[in-house]
Amino acid sequence: MIINKNAIKVIAFDADDTLWINEPYFQKAEHDFCALLENYLPQHAVSKELFETEMNNLSLYGYGVKGFILCMIETASRISAGQLSLKTINKIIAIGQDLLRMPIELLEGVEDTLVRLSAHYKLIVATKGDLLDQERKLKNSGLQKYFHHVEIMSNKKNEDYIKLLNKIECPAENFIMIGNSINSDVLPVLELGGQAIHVPYHVTWTHEQASDEVKPINFLQVESLDQLLPILL
Amino acid sequence: MIINKNAIKVIAFDADDTLWINEPYFQKAEHDFCALLENYLPQHAVSKELFETEMNNLSLYGYGVKGFILCMIETASRISAGQLSLKTINKIIAIGQDLLRMPIELLEGVEDTLVRLSAHYKLIVATKGDLLDQERKLKNSGLQKYFHHVEIMSNKKNEDYIKLLNKIECPAENFIMIGNSINSDVLPVLELGGQAIHVPYHVTWTHEQASDEVKPINFLQVESLDQLLPILL
Repeated sequence: MIINKNAIKVIAFDADDTLWINEPYFQKAEHDFCALLENYLPQHAVSKELFETEMNNLSLYGYGVKGFILCMIETASRISAGQLSLKTINKIIAIGQDLLRMPIELLEGVEDTLVRLSAHYKLIVATKGDLLDQERKLKNSGLQKYFHHVEIMSNKKNEDYIKLLNKIECPAENFIMIGNSINSDVLPVLELGGQAIHVPYHVTWTHEQASDEVKPINFLQVESLDQLLPILL
Repeated sequence: MIINKNAIKVIAFDADDTLWINEPYFQKAEHDFCALLENYLPQHAVSKELFETEMNNLSLYGYGVKGFILCMIETASRISAGQLSLKTINKIIAIGQDLLRMPIELLEGVEDTLVRLSAHYKLIVATKGDLLDQERKLKNSGLQKYFHHVEIMSNKKNEDYIKLLNKIECPAENFIMIGNSINSDVLPVLELGGQAIHVPYHVTWTHEQASDEVKPINFLQVESLDQLLPILL
């Protein structure tokens, strides 16, 4: 897959696990949650129940920490069959609130890459999640100054990218998306006629894991953000 | 207060309780919640406790239904001092999920007003709340087609309006905000040099109630949206 850099006017970056570390904090939270409930079910079974609750509520809650906390409470309530203490409920809320206060640790090479790309392209952020939470993380990242536009999206399907492209008045062929999720960052953009580069992160939420049918031969993968520089400059 | 209609290029509308009915559903939810807990505290005291929890968590959760559900659970847990049944927790989650499924009932004259104003001005929506929930309500309202831009904001303070005006590339003097909250829709916009019209709704969330010091002499008030027409056309 060859990137046509001459066509690119806007480079969009996913945020969580593309610019900064996120999923390990969710996995730690989930681990703590499962450990809280191991008197009722083995931890891997709690994890499976939680994922089911999340998928059942996804169309109602959308993405983000607050929905995650609500799903943990609902799951705990269900699997304990009414035996759960309110102390546990309070611990679950505390696990969730800690996620809303997670420190921002930039991934390697991110800031230098943004500095150098911003001299040549319009950079934007395109991310899912809770509105306030994503704004807070971006502010705490210190990266806001490199971005012309920040779009916090309720989803990242084709129609959501169409809306985004209309909003920023950018034709798909002048747009490239950079992110760690094949399903959310790469495939929909390619389908619309844009370009995309996959920067895998070592852990991915089950929901974002692409099926085996997707062959990386269809798109470019790099190992870290600084590898974008020789491709895009 | 005289509106200078010749300066106006963009008319921004608040959504909840400006375009459609919202607060009565929240008040019904809160009433049901307080009734659930009246074995522990009188209903007005539960309501006061809930409001305190909401204000304590506002900077962490922001506005919207999901934060409201989390605050109901936290409040219930606190005032029951550990005596609460999980059945009650599940009822609280159900009360909250009903809010996320609330039917959209437009306020009187809204659609006709938007039709007529959209022929002369660029109309936008500027609203607080959960991202997905506000998008869903707008979609269900059938009003989306009248708006050039929809901005779901984490807050509506001066700095949030500055960001919005930059995003839509509209100077404050060409901007007018229409909404039911003096604190969120009127005062910050006036301070920035824009115009604003207050359309009071018969119930307002305590947090949005303006202090007595605000005299409506400083801005225009109309009783319903269709009264905008003789002023703006």
